[in-house]
Amino acid sequence: MYDVLIIGGGPAGMAAAIYAARYKLKTAIISKMMGGAMTEANIIENYPGYLKITGLELATKMREQVENLKVPIIEEEVIRAEHLQGHFRINQKHESKYLVLALGTERTKLNVMNEDRYIGRGLSYCATCDAPFFKDKVVGVVGGRNSAVMAAELLTNYAKKVYVIYRGESLQAQPLQVERLLKNPKVKPIYACCVTHLEGEKMLSSVKLDTGAELELEGLFVEIGSTPSTVIARELGVKLDEQGYIIVDQKQRTNKEHIYAAGDITTNSAKWRQIIMACAEGSLAARSIYEAKKDAD
Amino acid sequence: MYDVLIIGGGPAGMAAAIYAARYKLKTAIISKMMGGAMTEANIIENYPGYLKITGLELATKMREQVENLKVPIIEEEVIRAEHLQGHFRINQKHESKYLVLALGTERTKLNVMNEDRYIGRGLSYCATCDAPFFKDKVVGVVGGRNSAVMAAELLTNYAKKVYVIYRGESLQAQPLQVERLLKNPKVKPIYACCVTHLEGEKMLSSVKLDTGAELELEGLFVEIGSTPSTVIARELGVKLDEQGYIIVDQKQRTNKEHIYAAGDITTNSAKWRQIIMACAEGSLAARSIYEAKKDAD
Repeated sequence: MYDVLIIGGGPAGMAAAIYAARYKLKTAIISKMMGGAMTEANIIENYPGYLKITGLELATKMREQVENLKVPIIEEEVIRAEHLQGHFRINQKHESKYLVLALGTERTKLNVMNEDRYIGRGLSYCATCDAPFFKDKVVGVVGGRNSAVMAAELLTNYAKKVYVIYRGESLQAQPLQVERLLKNPKVKPIYACCVTHLEGEKMLSSVKLDTGAELELEGLFVEIGSTPSTVIARELGVKLDEQGYIIVDQKQRTNKEHIYAAGDITTNSAKWRQIIMACAEGSLAARSIYEAKKDAD
Repeated sequence: MYDVLIIGGGPAGMAAAIYAARYKLKTAIISKMMGGAMTEANIIENYPGYLKITGLELATKMREQVENLKVPIIEEEVIRAEHLQGHFRINQKHESKYLVLALGTERTKLNVMNEDRYIGRGLSYCATCDAPFFKDKVVGVVGGRNSAVMAAELLTNYAKKVYVIYRGESLQAQPLQVERLLKNPKVKPIYACCVTHLEGEKMLSSVKLDTGAELELEGLFVEIGSTPSTVIARELGVKLDEQGYIIVDQKQRTNKEHIYAAGDITTNSAKWRQIIMACAEGSLAARSIYEAKKDAD
């Protein structure tokens, strides 16, 4: 029986583990992919304390801290969560007194015909993972917010041409990044349109837009947002807002006793998805559990 | 005319500067002591991303980020803050459209006779700054919460004996730290008492307790809490709670338009004073200003 099971191994989950372990709570993380969405970040320059670090490096450093504190990492997908009498049971075998839900968010798909067919055949939702495969090729990025701009910026390091296909009239990311991106001669923004068709024999070779235009390209990176991963939360009766984010109070408590939530999945931090915010929420969840448990013991 | 003046150069102020600069807001920090209370932390093991780092090192790394973004650091104490028509003026010369108050908190004193006379003569409020001066000496720490336990732990690296003088019945810090401290044979806790007198010719040589006991010691470190540094906030009409903390909403906005606050000085983060929380609040303040300004422009 653990004191705390943390579901999710991104920055929120790892920060929660670091603090919980230092509070001497018996803690474990359950996650099928340690590091979470952070691992997809190419270069991080806004995490206080590092001038420049890759997402993978930062994830590795946090994991070292977790392992140094002897917190077990259970590499499983959570497929079942039960609230029994006075405790929780995850995947029918891991039990704990408290839960931290830190599952983050999942990527939004294009929602066009044959989308799944091209995954790994030119279509990608992770520029960091896949950009290196598109050296000297023509690629597209769909989206115009921070993650799309970051993806496009990364792709300019590999591809010979990067279309940025956005339904809006101008890119909505940090001005510094937008300016830098648009200065790059490899980048060609295409505003006010959407991708309607993916085409190509075995591999993606072109896309059609709702303007009627057709673009020849070998890679397409979809960066059009994400939705919270709240299947488990729903199963446990945790209250969500109308967009599906877990409603938490200032102490990261959900509506359900002994269930806390932290990171991108919650309504806190003005729903701003940044590593520093996720870490703060995770840390605070651990502290709140420590205090609640001290009071209960 | 700056877009944003950040008053305070601790982690909240520096994180705000990093984000504000990356949002291309014209930003400066005003602070008489860059790094803030963080610089007093000996070893930090709970900042996600660093297994172990000194407070001074972490402060230096954050400062590097700030300087790399060309944010001016104005090394002045803020003695005057005016809210003029549509902008602010600090120390009668620095002007901005928005303010971030990130002044942190100030240490609570013992409040005994002759306290000021012994400062720098055996009495200290900063173990990190002064511990190395007490090699092989007998010292005391007043307090029993996290900061007192951290100070005592640091002092065991230098002093030959460390009294921990606390009015409570048991130490109230993280159990892991308390356990480690009490295992150290140099440490002698004295519970349920207060220091009433400081004594010694030129230098501190002993203290009297309210139990009647007298302890011979050459150093005394006071770690009994802190109060928010809100002189400037009061001058600007910013609303405080009953303990003097600046009341902010989920976006770090105060009751006064264009004035934001972040870090230890605010009511957010459940008033938990941790570097990671201060960084998150500072980052969010910058983002909120960026959004407010975009809407206003």
